[in-house]
Amino acid sequence: MEHIKGSQSICFKDSPYIVSSGCIVGSKESEGPLAKWFDITDKDDLFGAQTWEEAESNMQKRACELALSKAHIVPEDVRYLFGGDLLRQGIATSMGVEAFQIPMFGLYGACSTSGEALALCAMSVAAGYGNCMLAVTSSHFGSAEKEFRFPLGYANQRPLASQWTVTGSGAFIVGEKKSHVRISGVTVGKIVDYGLKDSQNMGACMAPAAADTIFQNLKDMTRTEKDYDRIITGDLGYIGQRILIDLLAKEGIDIKERHADCGMMIFDQQTQNTNAGGSGCGCAAVTLAGYILPKIHRGEWKRVLFVPTGALMSTVSYNEGASVPGIAHGIVLEHC
Amino acid sequence: MEHIKGSQSICFKDSPYIVSSGCIVGSKESEGPLAKWFDITDKDDLFGAQTWEEAESNMQKRACELALSKAHIVPEDVRYLFGGDLLRQGIATSMGVEAFQIPMFGLYGACSTSGEALALCAMSVAAGYGNCMLAVTSSHFGSAEKEFRFPLGYANQRPLASQWTVTGSGAFIVGEKKSHVRISGVTVGKIVDYGLKDSQNMGACMAPAAADTIFQNLKDMTRTEKDYDRIITGDLGYIGQRILIDLLAKEGIDIKERHADCGMMIFDQQTQNTNAGGSGCGCAAVTLAGYILPKIHRGEWKRVLFVPTGALMSTVSYNEGASVPGIAHGIVLEHC
Repeated sequence: MEHIKGSQSICFKDSPYIVSSGCIVGSKESEGPLAKWFDITDKDDLFGAQTWEEAESNMQKRACELALSKAHIVPEDVRYLFGGDLLRQGIATSMGVEAFQIPMFGLYGACSTSGEALALCAMSVAAGYGNCMLAVTSSHFGSAEKEFRFPLGYANQRPLASQWTVTGSGAFIVGEKKSHVRISGVTVGKIVDYGLKDSQNMGACMAPAAADTIFQNLKDMTRTEKDYDRIITGDLGYIGQRILIDLLAKEGIDIKERHADCGMMIFDQQTQNTNAGGSGCGCAAVTLAGYILPKIHRGEWKRVLFVPTGALMSTVSYNEGASVPGIAHGIVLEHC
Repeated sequence: MEHIKGSQSICFKDSPYIVSSGCIVGSKESEGPLAKWFDITDKDDLFGAQTWEEAESNMQKRACELALSKAHIVPEDVRYLFGGDLLRQGIATSMGVEAFQIPMFGLYGACSTSGEALALCAMSVAAGYGNCMLAVTSSHFGSAEKEFRFPLGYANQRPLASQWTVTGSGAFIVGEKKSHVRISGVTVGKIVDYGLKDSQNMGACMAPAAADTIFQNLKDMTRTEKDYDRIITGDLGYIGQRILIDLLAKEGIDIKERHADCGMMIFDQQTQNTNAGGSGCGCAAVTLAGYILPKIHRGEWKRVLFVPTGALMSTVSYNEGASVPGIAHGIVLEHC
């Protein structure tokens, strides 16, 4: 493999497959436009737990169990697990996957983590480090509001630019076993910082990173936007989408007709009061598992660029006046 | 490569090298037993910044710059960066490495993160995904006390079992370019939970994970403890070390004579009031960079098992009564 300077991408010679997936969502997602596509829609946002954090862990566990059972395998068959979430010190993942006893790599890439996990799974399988890897990510509205804004009991008001954290978890078995969807390549994202400081307008903070990764993907793989049936970002929402389209247009790349955003698809903005759209590590993951993968599986879409996007910040960083940089990872999914 | 069920390890056919390293520490470490081995010892724990978090980012930046310059390369030569820290949402890393514009994977493995980063760097180089990767981790006493316990201004009292977070950052270039230290294999850790809930006794929480990873490494690689000149854990401290030795003794593995712990080496417990020892993502990283690697480089030690250990918890998880599970990753370092 030759590595041209500035190339951020890998094209796999033996592309790994997404063998199976599992997804679970909460009450609000169960009333949204994608509801019928999710494996489990649970009206109890606590998922049988006492706290939001434990609820999120329970979702991860159930998403993994679904993915494992659909692939007809047990945890012992999985070589490595790559997982993460939005909470401080990634506790939703630590507590969620502990019971499986799979050797694990904990990740943090904000809402881009599902892309990061899929990239590392695919890289590990393609390298021959194991024939079966597990990627899992999650987010929860209750735990995320508490982590980044205010606990739900405070009835915090939400600006129009804000996004609604998706309560959901998606898990994916990536392996050598043939399926109808393969990961043919990945584009690992750089941190992109336009100096924005409004943590309540994450779409604007993340859009430049998405533009950078999409631009880089097309350049590295010598493709044009027309080589993809869809380019689907994670959670830019309504504001981020406009910025993304504008930024790419400046580079002569017109993605208007083929762009979709998981954060815009998962809720009905008009009736669900989700302001700028959905967000969270779980948003892109459950939309991929429930809605995008089946379309590629059936061959409706032959090649999709999946680009989960993350806003890199914490309550401490923005209270201290730091900007909110973005990062986005690109995963090339192909029907086969 | 064949993958035996239950094996957590990879032995590289073409082992990558640790091409160079850089380390920087703060004032207390500058007065400790390892002071003379560190590249930069800075008496100003703010490292020119206004906040502890920014100080930690500055350390990461300088550690990376050191590693890059010692390898005679520029950031554009590095294919991927793997980094992490202890702070919520990994902001020390996001803000610290942003300027390099290297495509990055953000990690979270508590104090085991340096092992996680080195494992993924080695896996990526050995797989041919690039001839040069960068691993970086950090911790800072000021930011960690604020994150996990109380801001320094509160003059919090520290129980005897507590550990002192190391102010330091270590960076490593892992690549194909020959040096005198190679990473010949890795053992990826599982989450190990003995149900301990005392977040002020992290050594006890992490020791079972260290024991598990060491046991697994010996089993996977069909070695005995005698095949290593040293087995060096990250930050078990005085309490964790005793538990580790006891747990392994039960399995017939006697590591007493060849065990060392970075958390025990970096401070003088008697004169520096560091209670059970040093800890933090930076502890294992700077000790590896400054003290361990040169010894392997010179051939004083031929083969070392380096095992950074992490306690998986957050203020939220332990306030909600969750236990503190541990994780540890094993990195096999060989003189060549």
